[in-house]
Amino acid sequence: MPAYHHPAPETFELSAVLRALADPARLDIVRHLERVGEANCATLIGTRPKSSMSHHFQVLRESGILHTRIEGVQHRNSLRRDELNTRFPGLLSAILQAS
Amino acid sequence: MPAYHHPAPETFELSAVLRALADPARLDIVRHLERVGEANCATLIGTRPKSSMSHHFQVLRESGILHTRIEGVQHRNSLRRDELNTRFPGLLSAILQAS
Repeated sequence: MPAYHHPAPETFELSAVLRALADPARLDIVRHLERVGEANCATLIGTRPKSSMSHHFQVLRESGILHTRIEGVQHRNSLRRDELNTRFPGLLSAILQAS
Repeated sequence: MPAYHHPAPETFELSAVLRALADPARLDIVRHLERVGEANCATLIGTRPKSSMSHHFQVLRESGILHTRIEGVQHRNSLRRDELNTRFPGLLSAILQAS
């Protein structure tokens, strides 16, 4: 499987980041990753439908919030905290603090 | 015309605020109000279609971002900055700084 595409920080769009985080399921994923640092998809999916979760991961990746690295059969996800914070200072912290 | 309904700060929802601000037209309204303090609808609408703008004002009001007071035939809009900041500290600033 090829590596996922991750957009460059200078192309992150505020509206895409806000739209991504406006969804409670996606915000849950982000909150979980904020706590644990890195997690595979199975851990993050829990009991939710896998198909809709694939879409959520994609939205989070395309907006620049999530990084997925492939390690064998595992897809390991983490937040792009530093890059997000450089592009939109204080935004992710304010959202995580609020939620 | 009756006064508009404005939700109490403790009922503001993060996902509704993020969804409201994820739209570029609504973010433009908020940015403009941040600069000028208060503005009537006509000033904020500019050359955009009035019908879609009524919807944008409604979304901003229902999420707790916007306050509209009626003064004669004028609808005067302002940000609920302090209440938003109490409920979601630093969030609006981070979004306005980012945009």
